[in-house]
Amino acid sequence: MNISVSLTDKNLFYMISFDNTMVDFKKRIEKIWAKVVEKNNIERLIVTGASNIYYLSGTDAASAAILSENGLLLISPRLEYLRAIEETHIGKVVAFVKGDVEVSEYEEIRRGELLDVIKDALAGLEPDRIGLVATSKDFKQKVEEKLGAQVKDATKDFTLVRRQKEDIEIKMMIMASRIAEQALRRAVDMLEPGITEAEVASEIIKFFVRRGHTFSFYPIVAFGEHSAHPHAKPSLKKLREGEFVKIDIGAKYNGYCSDITRTFVFGRASSRQKRLFNAVLRAQRESMNEIKSNIDAVKPYQTAYKILKEEGLAKYFNHGLGHGVGIDIHENPYLTYESKERLLTGDVVTVEPGVYLAGYGGIRIEDMVVVEENGYRLITLFDKEFEI
Amino acid sequence: MNISVSLTDKNLFYMISFDNTMVDFKKRIEKIWAKVVEKNNIERLIVTGASNIYYLSGTDAASAAILSENGLLLISPRLEYLRAIEETHIGKVVAFVKGDVEVSEYEEIRRGELLDVIKDALAGLEPDRIGLVATSKDFKQKVEEKLGAQVKDATKDFTLVRRQKEDIEIKMMIMASRIAEQALRRAVDMLEPGITEAEVASEIIKFFVRRGHTFSFYPIVAFGEHSAHPHAKPSLKKLREGEFVKIDIGAKYNGYCSDITRTFVFGRASSRQKRLFNAVLRAQRESMNEIKSNIDAVKPYQTAYKILKEEGLAKYFNHGLGHGVGIDIHENPYLTYESKERLLTGDVVTVEPGVYLAGYGGIRIEDMVVVEENGYRLITLFDKEFEI
Repeated sequence: MNISVSLTDKNLFYMISFDNTMVDFKKRIEKIWAKVVEKNNIERLIVTGASNIYYLSGTDAASAAILSENGLLLISPRLEYLRAIEETHIGKVVAFVKGDVEVSEYEEIRRGELLDVIKDALAGLEPDRIGLVATSKDFKQKVEEKLGAQVKDATKDFTLVRRQKEDIEIKMMIMASRIAEQALRRAVDMLEPGITEAEVASEIIKFFVRRGHTFSFYPIVAFGEHSAHPHAKPSLKKLREGEFVKIDIGAKYNGYCSDITRTFVFGRASSRQKRLFNAVLRAQRESMNEIKSNIDAVKPYQTAYKILKEEGLAKYFNHGLGHGVGIDIHENPYLTYESKERLLTGDVVTVEPGVYLAGYGGIRIEDMVVVEENGYRLITLFDKEFEI
Repeated sequence: MNISVSLTDKNLFYMISFDNTMVDFKKRIEKIWAKVVEKNNIERLIVTGASNIYYLSGTDAASAAILSENGLLLISPRLEYLRAIEETHIGKVVAFVKGDVEVSEYEEIRRGELLDVIKDALAGLEPDRIGLVATSKDFKQKVEEKLGAQVKDATKDFTLVRRQKEDIEIKMMIMASRIAEQALRRAVDMLEPGITEAEVASEIIKFFVRRGHTFSFYPIVAFGEHSAHPHAKPSLKKLREGEFVKIDIGAKYNGYCSDITRTFVFGRASSRQKRLFNAVLRAQRESMNEIKSNIDAVKPYQTAYKILKEEGLAKYFNHGLGHGVGIDIHENPYLTYESKERLLTGDVVTVEPGVYLAGYGGIRIEDMVVVEENGYRLITLFDKEFEI
């Protein structure tokens, strides 16, 4: 890896040099072959879900992909065909169309519905030699009705491979985080009495989009009592001195997400505001310190909860501690009271405790970390300043 | 209705006066009661799907709603509870949480998963007195497993009510369209050699968001050969003289979507560009002229296809003619070769033929119309100029 990050000044305008190493899709497919196809003793793997297909090929313009020893076949809707062939790094693309309509010379068309094309691509195989990665039970049932037989569900194995990020994926998320942090710095710099949440949100989105990136999710910018909504929508509310400013944003860079939250006070913080901020900061620090490979994912949640309980604030901590991040903004693993699994080396997760007091305001502080053998590596570098 | 639209100049900067009539949610629920609950001979209706819940209540912050003679119960995830109670115009909100965690004084909490709370709210009812509006088969199966019995699927009846727009909903979509048209005018005005697709897209989004609105879908801004992708993603490609400029955008106003596409040539159009543009324009005009209540939805598609076939372009028309628009950007009815249904008075649909020539460029022209008894009413007012 060759990333050099230098903080040129307090404004956090990073100089980033980034070698343009591409994802090695051939190697990635070999990994899937070993850890999903061979592991399940199958010959062909049907993959659905836009993010799963993007992971395999570099495009999300297909409705399904079929992996076999002949390679990767992407099956796209007709209107996405051209985008699929231009974006994919690997494999062959066909489009499907059901109606009796003319098609152009540049399209490779299969007549029928998606399920017809999938069935044709599986002809001659025993059902127990077919695996499926699906994002819904509905689709699995439809495939099985079409084939007249049950197929093997390989979704868990595929998800497990996707969780453990490659170096290049971590690089992408570092870049996505730097972009979000730059936008956040710009947002902080533009704060002044009377500016609206919507104006700040619009500048953040513009910052991402004009550079050719996009966003992981719709920005949250909440002033004053609006910050008591964990997922506030930017409104025309104007900023006043002494109010909370909660900003939760993420950029998407080359298909990979980032996610950062900071909460500030615009001006001088009251002692109550400081007490809340310091409690959340401590909950974040101590829960993050738990993170390493092989611990129960519930443990950091429990630590954050315990610290907020000591402060009498646990009842205002109304969501989980964090979630996996990658091609999807929310993916496995989840760090909540319900988590039953363990963290793995290569997981990228958020750590984001928060407290929300209706009619008063809320505070959340969120960073992204990579889970490592004996600890974690912090992706998010933005300061945890409070009064601005 | 009290909308006055005056075109002050060619720049289409509308003066809009708009009376702030609110949606009458009580009346809307009475309509659902008559056309869904009573029609299906049920006592309680479980409604899922964010847009369906928004339609009933004015908030999409709940995971499910239950309509009974006692009124509307909204069941929200805990972190959306505060937003749900602030946004809803009607009914009562409860939040659900499964874990053994403390909750605050301002939350009304039910312990358990969503399905537990739904089951409790249906206690004592015979299963054939329970109806369900669901966006997936998965959810229906889960409900039925939880209740140990089959429930009535009321999704089609609910969808049918949502299709036939009320006057206030049409007003919202007119406003959403005016906002999109203003943004489009601004985008056209900023075109100059060297500007990128991403810069134009970022200004369009900023235009929506800073005014407190949002967007119906991610903007499509495509120059030159990129316009051959029906769903191009804005890139860092720079504009050159004589290139196509295809812009497809939509604003979301008070929860209602708009959708407009225009294709221009930046500078002087070639005779080939003009021929393509005029063919698509004629296909749009003649297919739109078919639109009225009670015709087969496939008919306008067939008309557009026939005209493009006369021009030798049918093979490049690689998508449907249009789709319904409302709270969702794509909803029933669809105007494609597969359409089996009829148009209804109050449907709002797009009419958007297009042709796409790989490596050269593509043209799409899209307007929104309201289906009326004896024709249609045009929502989109933006000029169909070509050379800019």
